[in-house]
Amino acid sequence: MQLIEGKKISNEIKIEIAEEVKQFVASGGKQPHLAAILIGNDGASETYVGHKVKACSQVGFKSTLVRFKDDVSEKEVIDKIQEINNNDDIDGLIVQLPIPKHISEEKVIKIISPKKDVDGFHPENVGRMVAGLPTFISATPFGILELLKRYNIETQGKHCVVIGRSNIVGKPISILMSRKAYPGDSTVTVCHSRTKNIEEITKQADIIVVALGYAEYLKANMIKEGAVVIDVGITRVKSDKTKSGWKLLGDVKFDEVSKKSSFITPVPGGVGPMTIVSLLKNTLLSAKGSIYK
Amino acid sequence: MQLIEGKKISNEIKIEIAEEVKQFVASGGKQPHLAAILIGNDGASETYVGHKVKACSQVGFKSTLVRFKDDVSEKEVIDKIQEINNNDDIDGLIVQLPIPKHISEEKVIKIISPKKDVDGFHPENVGRMVAGLPTFISATPFGILELLKRYNIETQGKHCVVIGRSNIVGKPISILMSRKAYPGDSTVTVCHSRTKNIEEITKQADIIVVALGYAEYLKANMIKEGAVVIDVGITRVKSDKTKSGWKLLGDVKFDEVSKKSSFITPVPGGVGPMTIVSLLKNTLLSAKGSIYK
Repeated sequence: MQLIEGKKISNEIKIEIAEEVKQFVASGGKQPHLAAILIGNDGASETYVGHKVKACSQVGFKSTLVRFKDDVSEKEVIDKIQEINNNDDIDGLIVQLPIPKHISEEKVIKIISPKKDVDGFHPENVGRMVAGLPTFISATPFGILELLKRYNIETQGKHCVVIGRSNIVGKPISILMSRKAYPGDSTVTVCHSRTKNIEEITKQADIIVVALGYAEYLKANMIKEGAVVIDVGITRVKSDKTKSGWKLLGDVKFDEVSKKSSFITPVPGGVGPMTIVSLLKNTLLSAKGSIYK
Repeated sequence: MQLIEGKKISNEIKIEIAEEVKQFVASGGKQPHLAAILIGNDGASETYVGHKVKACSQVGFKSTLVRFKDDVSEKEVIDKIQEINNNDDIDGLIVQLPIPKHISEEKVIKIISPKKDVDGFHPENVGRMVAGLPTFISATPFGILELLKRYNIETQGKHCVVIGRSNIVGKPISILMSRKAYPGDSTVTVCHSRTKNIEEITKQADIIVVALGYAEYLKANMIKEGAVVIDVGITRVKSDKTKSGWKLLGDVKFDEVSKKSSFITPVPGGVGPMTIVSLLKNTLLSAKGSIYK
């Protein structure tokens, strides 16, 4: 069994991005610039945005953090997004989710210019992904593809089973793994809450992506010997063995599944750390004009 | 075995649409209006557009056919599309494909307003489909869903195997069959040219959608008893048994597969006739403002 070390890979990629930015700027290119909108002061959201801002500075990006109070009006947020859409210095714009209920998430996502939508959530970017056109692929699927690539995991003709059909992981990764490309060219099965006899399907998988949000769902008896296991779940559970009193669990029962798998991502330190570098990569692609010409 | 009679169903749906148009107009709604752009004079394209125009008049739609010569410039086509985008009387716009090579198909598809893209090819509409938002679903997948519905075929928890990963059939139908809805909620596997041991997978299918464009590809020994078989292929082959000297074959070896299946679409007369009614349905949805508010 080989551990897929997302944490390590993400640090390597950050160094690569920093180098690429340096060269791009030296050759007359603009410094990539990411803007983030944060509404309210939810602790987790604060932390996530903080990580993103810090990562920007690590790789030599400019970043702008726009803060709104919880009771900001939808119009104010939308006006700000439009201002950023029209600001040529800003290459990427993200709105940290979740946002307060009185503001429509759908409307906010749609108003972000697809050209700056480095989260890859805008329907136009999702549609471009389906059509195989250049696009901003959203962070988690982008990170999974990158991990498969960095570990030279063969995907062509393999059976990839995706558990979960969420808009942000299950659906996009299933589409990407079946496209004519590397990583991809897999036979892909999407399973979900309505799937019957799921073990019969997971046992056929050469590659399994688990994105259910159900702690330790995938057991060793559900996979075949030598499967590649990508664990997207993160659930926080109480623990008397950690200082904080909490620990993080993935969707995979790691101790037993890891013994049977060929490659496996740990939680934490697997897919998670890749999401920020995906965002950085998309912002760099935007600054370089690589997606929308 | 029950034959899924697309021809018959499509005629029934046309009558329903005509009735709906009548009521909509009587209650002060506008007459739906479809515009089609035809470039050059390819025989098949002429026929297809002719059928669409005829179908419009059958259901009480207005239609406008815009013809360009083969050597029309890309700019002229794009200008015309923009004119139609801005014409409030027109609810739907299609450009008959294929178009001459000097005009970019991608550019043409993207310039059509998503709000009038009743073919459902614009990335924004594809992305909305993935996200489960109201959208124009493209003709063939829309027609397949409608047939499953009209024959009350159970899809929840069924294993649906899609053979083919084209942008216009394989990818969208696989996404639609796995979404949380009826028809849908199936466990979905997408197979394609890189799939190994395909019979092992097709034999597991409760529902098979074949969209390869490979005449009589699916044989009886590849399916399990009682499977539902949807045949999207159309290949024209020489025949000394028909007056025209040609006959149409599907992707399914109908004579043997039909004996083993529970439901099956014939070729011709199965999925094919549904595509025009899908276009009509989308145009009516557009006229009613049901997709984009």
